[in-house]
Amino acid sequence: MSVLVVGSVALDSVETPSGSVRDVLGGSAIYFAASASLYTEVNLVGVVGTDFPQEHTRFLTERGVDVMGLKVVDGQTFRWAGRYNELGAVETLQTHLNVFADFHPTLPPGYERSDMVFLGNIDPDLQGEVLRQVKGPKLVMMDTMDFWIRGKRESLYQTMGTVDVVTMNESEVRLLTGKHSIISAARGVLELGPKAVIIKRGEYGSIMLSEDGYFIAPAYPVAYVKDPTGAGDSFAGGILGYLDGTDDFSPQALRKAIVHGTIMASYTVSEFSIDGLRSLNKANIAQRYQEFKGITQFEDKESTQ
Amino acid sequence: MSVLVVGSVALDSVETPSGSVRDVLGGSAIYFAASASLYTEVNLVGVVGTDFPQEHTRFLTERGVDVMGLKVVDGQTFRWAGRYNELGAVETLQTHLNVFADFHPTLPPGYERSDMVFLGNIDPDLQGEVLRQVKGPKLVMMDTMDFWIRGKRESLYQTMGTVDVVTMNESEVRLLTGKHSIISAARGVLELGPKAVIIKRGEYGSIMLSEDGYFIAPAYPVAYVKDPTGAGDSFAGGILGYLDGTDDFSPQALRKAIVHGTIMASYTVSEFSIDGLRSLNKANIAQRYQEFKGITQFEDKESTQ
Repeated sequence: MSVLVVGSVALDSVETPSGSVRDVLGGSAIYFAASASLYTEVNLVGVVGTDFPQEHTRFLTERGVDVMGLKVVDGQTFRWAGRYNELGAVETLQTHLNVFADFHPTLPPGYERSDMVFLGNIDPDLQGEVLRQVKGPKLVMMDTMDFWIRGKRESLYQTMGTVDVVTMNESEVRLLTGKHSIISAARGVLELGPKAVIIKRGEYGSIMLSEDGYFIAPAYPVAYVKDPTGAGDSFAGGILGYLDGTDDFSPQALRKAIVHGTIMASYTVSEFSIDGLRSLNKANIAQRYQEFKGITQFEDKESTQ
Repeated sequence: MSVLVVGSVALDSVETPSGSVRDVLGGSAIYFAASASLYTEVNLVGVVGTDFPQEHTRFLTERGVDVMGLKVVDGQTFRWAGRYNELGAVETLQTHLNVFADFHPTLPPGYERSDMVFLGNIDPDLQGEVLRQVKGPKLVMMDTMDFWIRGKRESLYQTMGTVDVVTMNESEVRLLTGKHSIISAARGVLELGPKAVIIKRGEYGSIMLSEDGYFIAPAYPVAYVKDPTGAGDSFAGGILGYLDGTDDFSPQALRKAIVHGTIMASYTVSEFSIDGLRSLNKANIAQRYQEFKGITQFEDKESTQ
């Protein structure tokens, strides 16, 4: 079993009310991999420049992430800088695509047999290129962003029509469907073809709509959010990582997977970069899973009511 | 068993993207009573002018609400007018307190023995006056609003220190505690004395913090919100109504009560005024309770995992 992730690998500079960091490990593929690798094997496809610190590649390999697909090319690694306000809203200060500008994902031999695929929020045409290279994956999930919704809508529709699960945040799903009600917007996404849509609501958790109906999960309560960067990608990593680890794709399994994604996101936002995910283990995750149950359940299993 | 509610009784004029209504039945005590009366007996304390339509009083009595405490005085009933935008944000267009300006809640004989008390978001000094009139209620819940947090903070602290449950919305709890994190803010409210705080998050549901820890419930998914007015008060009505009906005050019962409040709010926002609550029955509520379970549960009761 293995999960393929294709997305950005970046060096982020982030300011939040808790502090600031410079050129730390970031990018959608990284947050996804740091999360999913706690559950299963991850094949990573991305690109970095020659300036990409060795220690980051070492972290990935130590975590069991296959980095054969992480191409190193002449030039600088993708850099992003952003500032969050006290309510978690982000302002992008700088984006230097650098070597990421010419990124064309090519799967190394063996990757095409990955059981699950996560397409980070890259150009929908590139997402399509990846899908043409994989052979019969069991589940494909994709993310996207406002930039592609505005600029490459048709191409996005096409990719969405071929995947199993779409994940987006609230403002993106409103922009895509033109519907203000998130409930109606979720239905609008399903009309584009995917079997399920998972809408990310930040500190409010997530809402999934599928044939199975709605599943709504709150976020795990984190008193002190240090840095919201990567919450969505580590959420996705928890979902696919868990599913790949169990090889169960039932609606019930997808719900549990979302809870695992929720837990990964909660660890991610507690620290800068991927630091909240570095030293996690199965026992930590299992404990938070039980806590999450305690926070959300309202029927005593033992009671007959 | 009976629940006492003290709050505003109003004639509302509301504009939403779905339409508009003029001088319809509203006010915190009304939304609470329309909701709680589906579960238990309600004693209502409020004031209206001589212009208050008889049909509204008739509706209340038909619902089993005791209106001995609804004083009719010379003058006009409290009027509020507001406009909601597509995202549910409200702008108050007009507030005419009218007879409500001189409201001093006096409990008719018998009301002082009410088992549960809900103090709508009136002046905290008036909330205190009510509490001095009741004799050993089993549970007191209070609401408040930004106006009192800004203008009568000390008085508010005093009332809060004597009640069991405080309910507020997110912006109010931030204003009260000076904390941006809702999780930290919830802790801040408990430091003021109440046993539990329930923070209302609109379309995202609610979060309760008590000795028992957190309980986080999403909102029931309503595709088409016609009018958000009164959601919070009908939520409170569902909570106390359910608790009073079961006479169980365990943490588990409080969680179920919040789900009932959530269901009441979902019916309320589906129509203007209290119309979504008018023709409800126990079977409707029980069905939506089961649906809500289906939407939020992620562990199969039958499974052993």
